[in-house]
Amino acid sequence: MNWKNEISAAADRIAGYAQVTPVMESHALGLDYPVELKLEQMQHTGSFKARGAFNTLLSMDVPEAGVVAASGGNHGAAAAYAAQTLGYPAKIFVPKLAGPSKIALIEQTGADLSVVSGEYANALTAAQDHEAQTGAMQIHAYDAPGTVAGQGTCFAEWEAQGLQADTVLVAVGGGGLIAGALAWLQGARKVVAVEPETSCALNAALQAGEPVDVSVSGIVANALGARRIGSICFGLAQGMTSVLVSDAAIADAQKRLWQAHRILVEPAGAAALAALTSGAYKPAPGEKVAVLVCGGNISPDPLMG
Amino acid sequence: MNWKNEISAAADRIAGYAQVTPVMESHALGLDYPVELKLEQMQHTGSFKARGAFNTLLSMDVPEAGVVAASGGNHGAAAAYAAQTLGYPAKIFVPKLAGPSKIALIEQTGADLSVVSGEYANALTAAQDHEAQTGAMQIHAYDAPGTVAGQGTCFAEWEAQGLQADTVLVAVGGGGLIAGALAWLQGARKVVAVEPETSCALNAALQAGEPVDVSVSGIVANALGARRIGSICFGLAQGMTSVLVSDAAIADAQKRLWQAHRILVEPAGAAALAALTSGAYKPAPGEKVAVLVCGGNISPDPLMG
Repeated sequence: MNWKNEISAAADRIAGYAQVTPVMESHALGLDYPVELKLEQMQHTGSFKARGAFNTLLSMDVPEAGVVAASGGNHGAAAAYAAQTLGYPAKIFVPKLAGPSKIALIEQTGADLSVVSGEYANALTAAQDHEAQTGAMQIHAYDAPGTVAGQGTCFAEWEAQGLQADTVLVAVGGGGLIAGALAWLQGARKVVAVEPETSCALNAALQAGEPVDVSVSGIVANALGARRIGSICFGLAQGMTSVLVSDAAIADAQKRLWQAHRILVEPAGAAALAALTSGAYKPAPGEKVAVLVCGGNISPDPLMG
Repeated sequence: MNWKNEISAAADRIAGYAQVTPVMESHALGLDYPVELKLEQMQHTGSFKARGAFNTLLSMDVPEAGVVAASGGNHGAAAAYAAQTLGYPAKIFVPKLAGPSKIALIEQTGADLSVVSGEYANALTAAQDHEAQTGAMQIHAYDAPGTVAGQGTCFAEWEAQGLQADTVLVAVGGGGLIAGALAWLQGARKVVAVEPETSCALNAALQAGEPVDVSVSGIVANALGARRIGSICFGLAQGMTSVLVSDAAIADAQKRLWQAHRILVEPAGAAALAALTSGAYKPAPGEKVAVLVCGGNISPDPLMG
C-alpha cells in the first residue's frame, strides 16, 4: 500500500469534516527542554478518532443497514458523530468502562448504543455479530486501512503546520494512531510508542515477535485498552522504540498539562507526555521532541458535575 | 504615545517569558459561520495577564521592596508568577471572591498574599496603601501603559499567526486587554467590547461620556469585575462597538467551548464568544470574526476536586 498517497487522499476527503487542531510549543511542563504539542483532543468528539471515522465513511459505499463500531468509547463517539453528520444510521457497542462522558457523547448523536460487560474486546465481538447479522459496515477502531489513513492525516497536518521535532511520541492502544504516524512519517522522524504498563499490546507484540493477547486494566483502559495490537500497526512497527509508563506517571502528566496550560485531558491524552516527564523516554542532547495530545473525554464531565 | 512601538518593544521584551498561545478556526460552536479563536487561557497562570506583568517588570527598575498588585485573581497570579520568575518579592491583594483556584495559583508562587473583603476595588485600595507604606512598585491590573502594551502583544502575535478576521471580540473588565487590542490594531480591524450585564464599566462610561462607577456582580465578578473603566482604555475606546451579555449566555458559551473542543475556561473566558452565540453581536454577511479566549482559571480546579 502507498500510505503517503492514501493519507493525502484521506486528508482531502475529510477536509471540512475534521477540525484542523492547533499546535504549540511549551516550555512550562517541568522539563529542561521544549516540547511541541498538537492538541488533537480539540478534534470533534474529543479525540483524533473522528479523522479515521470520516475517512472510512467518505471512501466506502455505506449499506442501508448503516455502520457499526466497537469502541472503548472515543472511536464509538467519533463513528456515531461522523455517521450522524453524513446521515447514516449507526450502531455502537462499548464496554461499561467507557464511562459516563463517552457514553453521553454517543447518546447525543442519536446512535443506537449498546453497553456490554467486560472490556473493548467484548464490544468488538458484539459488533462483529451485529455486522454478520445485519450487513452493517464495520468501522474498525484501529485495524483497517481507512482508519489508519484517516489517523495519519493528523501527522500530515502537523507537518504542514511547521512541526520541527526529530521525534514524535504517540500513545498506543490498538495502534491506529501510531500506525498513521509511521505510515506518514516513514522514518523521516523517529516515532516513539508509549503505552501504559497496564495495557501494552504493542510492547508485548514487539517482544514476542508477533501480536499476542495482553491483559488490560488501569486508568486508561477505556481508551488504550486493546487486548491485541492491530496487524496493520504491527506490520509498520518493526524495530521501533517502545516505552512503558505507569498509571501514576500518566496522572502526573495529566496534572502538568492542566496546570501549565489549562489543557484538560483524559488520562490517555497525557500518556505520551508521561514518557518524557517520567523519564521513560530521555531525549538525546539537542533532540527535538513532540507529543500528540490525543484525547480529552475526561469523566466526570467538568461542566456537568 | 506611539502604541505600535510600545507593543513591539513589549513583544521583544517578553519573548521567552510569555507563552506563544495557539490559534484555531472553529466551525463547531453552533454558529452558521466560522470563528477564529486565540487560546490565551493557555498562557502562563491561565490568562493573558502574564504578558502585561512580564512587560512591566522587564521595563522598570524594581525597588528593593519588590512589587505589589491588586487583582480579582488572574492579574495577581500573573504578577506573582512573573515576580517569582524574575526573582522579586511580591505582595498580592485579592478579594475573597477570587476563589480557591486563583488563590492557590498565587500561593504556589510563594508571594505574600492578603485576601480582603469586598470586590477588586477594595483590593486595589489595600495595594495602594501598601505601595505608599513600603515603596513597592505597583503593577496595575489594567490602567498602566506597561500593562496595556503587554496585553497588546497578544494581538501582534495573533496577526503574525495569520489572523484573518475583520472583527475581533474581546471581553472587558477594567479594559487592559481591549486597550491593548485597540492600541495595536488602530482601526485596521474592528474591535468589539463584550461585557457582562452584571459588570459593565466600559459600556457605562461610553454612555455617560466619562468613566463612572458601576456595581459589580455575577459569575464573572472575579475576572471582569472592575468598578470603573481604566482611563487608558477609555481614551482609546471612543466610538467603539460595545455589547452586553447575560450570565446565562456566558455559561452557555462556556459549555459550547468545552463540548465542541474540550476548551475548559472560566466564565470570563467565554464572555466574548457569548456575544456571538447569544446574538448580542451579529456579524454582517461575510464579516469574518475572531474571539480572544482570555482566561481558564475555573473553580473548583477540575483535577483537584
